[in-house]
Amino acid sequence: MSHEETRSAGDLRKTGLSLKHDRTWDYELDRIVDAVEERDAEKVGLQFPEGLKRRAPMVADDLRELLPDDTRVLISGQPCYGACDLDTYVMRRTDVFVHFGHSPMKESENIIYVPLFSNVDVEPIMEQSLEELEVGDVGLVTTAQHMNLFGEMKEWLTERGFDVHTRKGDDRLTHEGQVLGCNYASADIDADQVLYVGGGKFHPLGLAMEHPDKKVVIADPVNNSVSVADTEKFLKQRYATVHKAMDAEKWGVIFCTKIGQGRWDQANEIVENNDNAYLITMDEVTPDRLRNFDMDAFVNTGCPRITTDDGPQFHKPMLTPGEYEIAVGNKPLDELSFDTFHGTW
Amino acid sequence: MSHEETRSAGDLRKTGLSLKHDRTWDYELDRIVDAVEERDAEKVGLQFPEGLKRRAPMVADDLRELLPDDTRVLISGQPCYGACDLDTYVMRRTDVFVHFGHSPMKESENIIYVPLFSNVDVEPIMEQSLEELEVGDVGLVTTAQHMNLFGEMKEWLTERGFDVHTRKGDDRLTHEGQVLGCNYASADIDADQVLYVGGGKFHPLGLAMEHPDKKVVIADPVNNSVSVADTEKFLKQRYATVHKAMDAEKWGVIFCTKIGQGRWDQANEIVENNDNAYLITMDEVTPDRLRNFDMDAFVNTGCPRITTDDGPQFHKPMLTPGEYEIAVGNKPLDELSFDTFHGTW
Repeated sequence: MSHEETRSAGDLRKTGLSLKHDRTWDYELDRIVDAVEERDAEKVGLQFPEGLKRRAPMVADDLRELLPDDTRVLISGQPCYGACDLDTYVMRRTDVFVHFGHSPMKESENIIYVPLFSNVDVEPIMEQSLEELEVGDVGLVTTAQHMNLFGEMKEWLTERGFDVHTRKGDDRLTHEGQVLGCNYASADIDADQVLYVGGGKFHPLGLAMEHPDKKVVIADPVNNSVSVADTEKFLKQRYATVHKAMDAEKWGVIFCTKIGQGRWDQANEIVENNDNAYLITMDEVTPDRLRNFDMDAFVNTGCPRITTDDGPQFHKPMLTPGEYEIAVGNKPLDELSFDTFHGTW
Repeated sequence: MSHEETRSAGDLRKTGLSLKHDRTWDYELDRIVDAVEERDAEKVGLQFPEGLKRRAPMVADDLRELLPDDTRVLISGQPCYGACDLDTYVMRRTDVFVHFGHSPMKESENIIYVPLFSNVDVEPIMEQSLEELEVGDVGLVTTAQHMNLFGEMKEWLTERGFDVHTRKGDDRLTHEGQVLGCNYASADIDADQVLYVGGGKFHPLGLAMEHPDKKVVIADPVNNSVSVADTEKFLKQRYATVHKAMDAEKWGVIFCTKIGQGRWDQANEIVENNDNAYLITMDEVTPDRLRNFDMDAFVNTGCPRITTDDGPQFHKPMLTPGEYEIAVGNKPLDELSFDTFHGTW
């Protein structure tokens, strides 16, 4: 048991969530209870991201104490990696559906989104990040879990003479300055440098890939480190994969069935124009599931981060739609770019 | 590539399907084409069991040659382990949905079931199995893929002086004499011995667990071997797991969302009567998905074979609903029995 707990705690540390003590988390149970009463709900569905699933029984206990005895609480056991990844089975079969830990990708009366904010102090690491920044124009971005401090961050930079550029991005993003692993529209600003404040390198690496002309400075308050995003290894891997796929005859074109990860038109267009392309539908895109298919290469129209980050784990080259166009000769190699995801569903 | 092909071929060998040459398989493309024309279908969905997924591109090619150019063929990439396991996402979003390799669990106008029969000759191994059988009353069962020879098998035994008992079982089963991994109602017959003709030990082991008072003789034409089902190792493992789970406080109760694997009333009843039980919903029940949950033990109301066959791979004890009743003290240990699945959806 201690093994699993350590593992989960480790995962949480990486996301910055572990720094917030249990007692100070706000699961907004009152909001849930109100919705249950209002709708006279019989079933309540709860969905947690992977790193928070171990808290599910505790939240369910607290909730059940507040709810009528005959209210049934369902916990989603499906993997969950973002607000793009709602458990639609549970959502459609419960009267109140609560999604924890991600900001809304699309507002809906049927979904209660409960954000869970990190309580880590960001100023010390921002202070350190000044070494990598030039006073002047700077973009500022962060993730949903640090969003509660975005105003402070902006003010802090302004006080130090920066001209801080922020924007909301497109409709896939809830907040000004927010980035997702698949969307960096909030960094489409008029500055050559962008400061990312948040845990891990997952987001800033995508940001640097999407905006290769900008210097992306990472102020990571969770791991207490400042660095500059370096996409070289990442890019080399993409070029190598594209080259490998150039010999492919049979292509598996993946259409992802997760509610916020479907790009039907893109998948359909590829299949329409290539007699050796086959449309494969699935929710979780994993090496195991694709191993059974006799294909030479795959194009993933679902989550781009599975392609770029998990790509090497697949038995055959796995490309983004843009990379596919290069591999089959429709576009030149120098048009290789990061695959971002826009819109909702 | 050769590696994967060998692997798949291996899987097929185990199912007996590899013995049928590609050219002699009958995918019943005409039936599919007729349905497409009749319904003026724009989208056709194809679902194959794991061992047959590598044939999907070939079947799609053959089908596309017969269909109008603008008909879109979707191949399900979800894991598939039976007719209980229809890809409802694809089914609901295509005009014609074809499920290969399993017999219908429930007939529906929207589903075309295409059985795929093994062409292995069963008589030589039945001849060998006579050594384990006593002439007199005998039950006869087989799986969907040998169903085409069931009449012959029955006749063959009758000619040799046996009084062959067969029955259709309940409504989860399509054919007389058919068994599923989760249902052996076709062996509820008046004989102390049952002959199972088919590949592998998966089915006869379940059969022997469900009917512990009968001698189950296995005539396996695929691996060319005759044996008697021995449930001892299996049973010991179940008792050990039940004992381990007796100390559990927090229980995760799994409700499987696959169309033919849901037992809501059973799951609900457990949660209703145990304050330390939590309802978890998922489609694929895997060790990875459960590892994130902080539970002491699990009860699986979905596929019983995941519990009994894959049980040891889970990080915490995984019980069938009946085993759970024993572990929490509602039933005596000697009531331990095999979990079977009845009805459809």
